[in-house]
This record gives sequence, C-alpha cells and structure tokens, in this order.
Amino acid sequence: MELSVTQENLSRALGAASRVASSKTQLPILSNILMRTDGHRLMVAATNLEIASSQHIGAKIVNEGAITVPARLITEFVSSLPKTTVKLKVDDNKLQLKADGYTSTINGTLADDFPELPTINEKTAVKYNIGTGSLKQAISQTILTASSDATRPVLTGVYWHSFEGHLYLAATDGYRLSEKRLVATKSDVSAIIPTSTLQEVLRSVSDDVEEVEVLFDETQVRFRLNDTEITSRLIDGNFPDYRQLIPAKSETNVTLPCSDFAQITKVAGLFARESGGSVTITANSSKDKLSLHSVATELGENTSETPAKVSADGEVTLNSRYLIESLNVVDSDEVVFRFSGKLSPCVLAGNKKDSDYLHVIMPLKS
Amino acid sequence: MELSVTQENLSRALGAASRVASSKTQLPILSNILMRTDGHRLMVAATNLEIASSQHIGAKIVNEGAITVPARLITEFVSSLPKTTVKLKVDDNKLQLKADGYTSTINGTLADDFPELPTINEKTAVKYNIGTGSLKQAISQTILTASSDATRPVLTGVYWHSFEGHLYLAATDGYRLSEKRLVATKSDVSAIIPTSTLQEVLRSVSDDVEEVEVLFDETQVRFRLNDTEITSRLIDGNFPDYRQLIPAKSETNVTLPCSDFAQITKVAGLFARESGGSVTITANSSKDKLSLHSVATELGENTSETPAKVSADGEVTLNSRYLIESLNVVDSDEVVFRFSGKLSPCVLAGNKKDSDYLHVIMPLKS
Repeated sequence: MELSVTQENLSRALGAASRVASSKTQLPILSNILMRTDGHRLMVAATNLEIASSQHIGAKIVNEGAITVPARLITEFVSSLPKTTVKLKVDDNKLQLKADGYTSTINGTLADDFPELPTINEKTAVKYNIGTGSLKQAISQTILTASSDATRPVLTGVYWHSFEGHLYLAATDGYRLSEKRLVATKSDVSAIIPTSTLQEVLRSVSDDVEEVEVLFDETQVRFRLNDTEITSRLIDGNFPDYRQLIPAKSETNVTLPCSDFAQITKVAGLFARESGGSVTITANSSKDKLSLHSVATELGENTSETPAKVSADGEVTLNSRYLIESLNVVDSDEVVFRFSGKLSPCVLAGNKKDSDYLHVIMPLKS
Repeated sequence: MELSVTQENLSRALGAASRVASSKTQLPILSNILMRTDGHRLMVAATNLEIASSQHIGAKIVNEGAITVPARLITEFVSSLPKTTVKLKVDDNKLQLKADGYTSTINGTLADDFPELPTINEKTAVKYNIGTGSLKQAISQTILTASSDATRPVLTGVYWHSFEGHLYLAATDGYRLSEKRLVATKSDVSAIIPTSTLQEVLRSVSDDVEEVEVLFDETQVRFRLNDTEITSRLIDGNFPDYRQLIPAKSETNVTLPCSDFAQITKVAGLFARESGGSVTITANSSKDKLSLHSVATELGENTSETPAKVSADGEVTLNSRYLIESLNVVDSDEVVFRFSGKLSPCVLAGNKKDSDYLHVIMPLKS
C-alpha cells in the first residue's frame, strides 16, 4: 500500500474509527484500525464485534493494499500533525508516515487477520432517510430512559418499531419510559438498537451531514452519514408491550413553562441527595401553584414553588433526577405534567396539539 | 443574625470560600462555611487550617450575628437561585434562606466552635502590590516545577525571596527548576509558599482585580484581591541554594520559534510514552536543524525535525513532558534552548535581552 491523503481527512476518519476500536479486548487486533485502499479512496475502519465503523476518504493511490495499526498511536500522531499532505507506505507490515518534518514508523499487523466487516443486503433491507436534526433529537429523547442493567438485555436498547403507519422509538428501564413518533412508514420494523450504537451515531453526526440513511435487516442496522457507516447488531428478544403502561388521562393536569419547572426541580434536588432524589410535588388548584418539597435529614429542607395552571389538587413523590432529565429533553416552551395520586405513572409532554413525544415516570413510595 | 444580600454577591463569596472548606477532614466543622456580620458587610469564610479564605460582601444588616453551615449544600443552593435578593435569618442554629419562590432551612452549628481565622500584623509585615497579570504569570511559570513529594516539604512550595534588589520566585523538584524575577524590593524576604495556596490564588483572581497585595510575616503570607483575603502558613525550612545548579553558559545554543519546538515535542512525545517520555534531541549546526527522535519499542518510532539557529552540534536526552510544560510557560515567540552534552542541565529561556524567566531541565540517561 502506498498513497497520500490530507491530514484533515485522515485525522477525522481516524478519530471516528478509533472511538469504536477497543483497548479492553481479548482479541488484540480489535484495538487496531484497518486501512485499506478501495478504488480511488482509502477506507479507515474499526470494530468491537458489536459495532463496526468505517470511513471513506479521498486519496491519491500509488499502490493498492491494506494494513492494521494500533488505533490510539496513529490517531494521536495524525491529529498532532500540521495541516498538510500525509504520505503512507506499507513495507514489511510496517506503516511509514511522512508529513513535512515528521517521519514515523508504526508497527502493524496483517489486514487478513482483521475480522470481516459486517454487510447488509440493501435490496431486502428496510430503508429510511431521516433529517439529521430530527434523528439526533429522537435518539437523545429516548436513549436516557434505556436500562443499563445487563440482566434484561432487551431493555438496554431503544426499540424502533412501526405502529399505525409511523416509525416509533421507545425505551424503558422499568422506572421511566419515553416514546417518540419519528416518520411515516409503510414497512414493518421491529428492532432493538443498543444504546452504545446510538451514542456512537450521536457522536459521529457532524454539522455537514444533512440526512442520515438508516437501513434495517433481520439482525443488523446500519447508519450512513455521508462517507461514514456505522453498522451494529440488534438486540435479540421481544420488547415489552409498553403502551399499556401509559395512562390515557390523569386526574391532575399541570401546565407551566418548562424552564420554571426545571429550575425549581434543580433546587429541590440539592436537598434530596440523601433521600435518593426523592421530592414531593404538590399541585394547588386554588392558588394555581406547583410546589416541590425535599428534606435532607441532617442538613435541612427546602420548599420551591412556581405559578402553574393546575386542573385539580394532587400530590406525588418522584425522583428529582428523573424529572430534571425529562424536562431537559421535552422540546417545548410549556410542558404538561399530569398524574393521578401517589401510585399511578406520571406523564410529561410538550403543550402542543400534536405532541410527538411523551415521557413517563413511576412515582416513589412516600 | 438577620440580613439580605444579592444572590450574585453571596454566590460568588460562597464559591470562593467553599473551595477551601474541606470535606475530608477529621474536624467536621472545617467542612462548614462561617458567615458573620462585620459592620455593614457580611463576611463569608472557610479554612482547612493551612489556608483560610474570607470574603466581604455588601449586606443590609437587620440583626448582627454569626453561624456556620455545610459548605457544599449552601453553595450549590445559592448558585442555583435566580438573580434576586436573598434573605438570611438565623434561628436556633438554623439558617433560613428565602428568595422569590424558594424557602430553605439549613442546619448549622455555633460560630463559636469555628477555628479562629489567622491574622497578620500589617505594621511589621513586608508588603508588595503586584499587577494581577504579572502575578498570575509568575505563579504559573514556577508552580509547575515544584515537587509533590511530601518527604521533602521545602520543595513542595515556591520560594519567594529577595536577591540583589529584586523579589524572585523559584521552585524545583530535583528534575527541573524554574526561576522568575518579579519586582524590585528593598526588603528582605525568604518565604516558601505551599503550591496549594498559590493554586487557590490563581483560581481566585478574577478579571476585575487589577492589583494583588501580598503581605509576609515570619510564618504567614496573605494575598488580598479586592474583598477577598487568602491567608496561608509558610513552609518551614531552608530552600536549597539552587543558583549554583544553573549553568551560566552552554556549548550548544539553539534558537527557534517556541511554537515549532512545542509542536515537534508534542508529536515525538506520543512515541515516548513507553520509555517514560524519553526523547533524544539532536542539534545540527551545518543543516541548522533541531530533530527529536523517540522509540516506542513494540509500536514504532518517530523523527520530528524543524529549522533552528544552532551554534554547535550536540545531543541530549530529555523527558518530553517536562519539555512541553516548559515551552508552554516560556512567554516568548522565540526560545533559546541550550545544553552541554548529555549530562549537564539544559536551560530554556525567552530570546529577549533581559529575560526575567528561566527553566532548567536535567537530562535523562540515554
């Protein structure tokens, strides 16, 4: 292999691939990056066997070929170089890099030993093209309620599925739940995507990507963002029938500016650290006020209140951290917070006619 | 105690004091903040017995008094409040805080139990008024070469001392050394200030402070920055006679842009991780080049070079991290790097006629 590329392109590609390369692995070659000529381009790829990330960048190819080299060293080296042309040449499993006054040799290993990168049959797969802004928002709004408990794998991902003509994303950890309606669809989709894959998609989306192509087959999903492809296995199993957990109506409906609710929750949460985040929310319909009360046994206590439209008196105890996190992702100036006494699930949603997002939080025993 | 203050002033004062309050202490009261009325102002203070930090802020005093409360809770609480007036009232060792819709009670302890804050006799002390920019730079340029090894306490501070009509700052950890000439002085000063104190001074200096007053007595130093006072004990003992370690002349003198030297050192350092940062520097007078060579045994090797004015050929091996750190603080576009073979100390200084800073690094055995 012998070729030249710009430092900027190579550095960007290495940065993306090296995030997927794993240093904590049984298979040492997985901490390497695969570089392989592909027509007039250079492919830079890495995989941790769950996710594979590959980038294609323009290159002046002198000789075709391939090699794998340690991800961290080459990524840091190339990112430290000045913005210039970088020449790469493979000789006897060593990669030589030259740029201005810099000459490095990095010891590599045969590309043949690298695991095969996953492929998807484009003809039989289900495909969506989703605007970058919508996709980023939908992932951010759902990923936070996925579980990190590996004993129930189906809950550790976000459930992408078709329902009544739309593609929905949903995730729950048993304590809270989120659901987002994304785009119209005529296809049948039912796929649980690992949160690590979706986090990698969020990290990889740069501002110059307008649209992301999402491709599902039976066992895999692939996100294509311009010249970057992230391919991941899906989580095996059936996602629980979460819709039955969402109350259609509630006794107490509270409407208020999202930022006000977030502010009083943040303050109340400071006094709730010793009680596992527990804050008691009181809605007062005659005073049109929402107040939060929290107690730090030895340290003191707090009451924070703010004006709100309240349909009926009510009281419920929630985890303030869950509440703050949900208010951070409800994309709405005003939020509707509704609940029915101390035991039923609480629902948060934007105060829009046709809100496409809702967030459910289970109460704490108080 | 009963008074009102602005949220901004109280939050700023609590932020500064709480950095000094310690949560890892045998004496629980040291994790508290002392609040005490002082004429028309409120004093907010904390101490870890080595450093004391006190702030004075304007207040509308209704009743005089004092209390101590847990630093972290009150600091986070007040910083989360909106920009408004905060009312404070002490009742039965409880501090009640009210602001807009927020009401909190924080359990405190008697101010009488708080350790006495250190004082300095202004009449007998030596005083300097130093421009904030100069002071910050002088501390930053010297603090990095102080030792973190507690077995030789005198090396864990920066040595402020008078010499030939000037105040000098110096610090050494045995591997490197830095010296800064600060201001003219007619007084005799010899004081070792702990690095933790100087770091606290750096953190406390905001842009609205034009000048810092530094006051020395026999055992203490006090920095006054507007309404903030940081008082610290000095380190007991004699600082070594470091001047004899600085070579007056060197065989090889290399002059080059500081940023070029830093850039090639950064790249070479990536390949020097496995060898404890060891890079070999070669100065070539016929080619007028400075080159750095580093070897990562299993991973590869690197040569980085850049044009430089070189007085005579030479080679020396240094720790690349020390070199990068010194280049970061030499305040000069061009740097003079000089050394005499593989064993003598290397000297870095700005390429100015009357440079007030120098940095010495001991070579590694190669």
